[in-house]
Amino acid sequence: MLERLREVSATSAFNRWLGFELVSASAGEVEMHLAWRDEFGQYSGFLHAGVVGALLDTACGFAAATLSGANLLASQFSVRCLRPAVAKTFVVRGRVVKPGRQQIFAAADLEALENPGKLLAVCDTLLINLK
Amino acid sequence: MLERLREVSATSAFNRWLGFELVSASAGEVEMHLAWRDEFGQYSGFLHAGVVGALLDTACGFAAATLSGANLLASQFSVRCLRPAVAKTFVVRGRVVKPGRQQIFAAADLEALENPGKLLAVCDTLLINLK
Amino acid sequence: MLERLREVSATSAFNRWLGFELVSASAGEVEMHLAWRDEFGQYSGFLHAGVVGALLDTACGFAAATLSGANLLASQFSVRCLRPAVAKTFVVRGRVVKPGRQQIFAAADLEALENPGKLLAVCDTLLINLK
Amino acid sequence: MLERLREVSATSAFNRWLGFELVSASAGEVEMHLAWRDEFGQYSGFLHAGVVGALLDTACGFAAATLSGANLLASQFSVRCLRPAVAKTFVVRGRVVKPGRQQIFAAADLEALENPGKLLAVCDTLLINLK
Repeated sequence: MLERLREVSATSAFNRWLGFELVSASAGEVEMHLAWRDEFGQYSGFLHAGVVGALLDTACGFAAATLSGANLLASQFSVRCLRPAVAKTFVVRGRVVKPGRQQIFAAADLEALENPGKLLAVCDTLLINLK
Repeated sequence: MLERLREVSATSAFNRWLGFELVSASAGEVEMHLAWRDEFGQYSGFLHAGVVGALLDTACGFAAATLSGANLLASQFSVRCLRPAVAKTFVVRGRVVKPGRQQIFAAADLEALENPGKLLAVCDTLLINLK
Repeated sequence: MLERLREVSATSAFNRWLGFELVSASAGEVEMHLAWRDEFGQYSGFLHAGVVGALLDTACGFAAATLSGANLLASQFSVRCLRPAVAKTFVVRGRVVKPGRQQIFAAADLEALENPGKLLAVCDTLLINLK
Repeated sequence: MLERLREVSATSAFNRWLGFELVSASAGEVEMHLAWRDEFGQYSGFLHAGVVGALLDTACGFAAATLSGANLLASQFSVRCLRPAVAKTFVVRGRVVKPGRQQIFAAADLEALENPGKLLAVCDTLLINLK
């Protein structure tokens, strides 16, 4: 499973640029790590909200992909930025909330590896199974 | 106004990497253009949903910044991916929906410069005025 | 079209309780009016956010139903409460943002009939076409 | 705490109409029960999405109110309808995800008392502390 997702991820140029590591994957769940790089910063030097959203939405998509071999696209995603996103290494966890044939509800959260249990941002994504 | 926003944007490393052009800015409204680059792609070669969200959220933030000199942070943003995001040049328009002292509601949409009037994605962002 | 939607609405007990009037319906668009009643109030006497959401989500569903004979269900809806919702008569307008075979993106807004152009709340809804 | 919230709730005419029971309240958490009534139905006889949203948003507000004596208003709320909402008695649980001085992030979920562990709908709400 982990290998298959890594191969899919490697086909996405933006995922390669982000450079996260897919650490684990099981049925309906994934975990990714991302080391801070200066080019991720917004104007105050925090992780840019766009990168926060990209990581969380990607983790939702991977979590969904563990349950579905089909072609998935995000229909909508919503991000809550709870705290300034600062970390040496970011941990992103995605999980399926409700699988389905037509649509999959997933969620993800972001925290600092060095500060476990303190959520930086959360996201929910609705993916559609293209037919 | 345009100059001031360009200077703020230049302080964000991720905005520099994205490389969009801030085309116009007036009270409560901005427009940005972004030329396609291969490194923006997801696994099917469309614009990555994370980049879609980053552009739209950034446009919301700029639109809000035209009305507020204060320190703004996105509290939440929500993206609807209406169609596969494909373009040679993307047009991103941001606007303030409801200004406020404590919070600012903004929205943005994305289309292809070569296909005007056909929305690719829309976003709403709630920004908070840090005090 | 208007007659057909009124008949569908009459089969919903909660819609009958709300008691809105479906004023107009065309392809992808509807308008509803609702006279204030005291039982709609939250603790400050404004229109309860739950009723705000119910009206907006219902208008999104009707707008989608003008384009689709199929069985539609809301998958997700999101409401921004821009101002305290106070009116003698509320106007709710729903419109389809992007029709589709599997999913329909719709949006709606709320204002006071006696104060046109001043948005009280906005909503987006993603509906799925059950098969 | 439970008494104080019940008194606040009783000042809301729409909450009285809904008729839910506030079962428990502790710091950052509440639980409400609601017996099915026919007037809550949408056109298929399920719990109307508007009532789903009203319950979930209300539970978020109560959860926030356990931590804040101030005047709170929902700025935005978002509802995911995971399954048709059918139950003899609905259980609604609200919790604070991130408290704050200016804004409070809360979330809530809905299930059937007779079918625990099977989520029917989930919601997140961003509340603002009016000053």
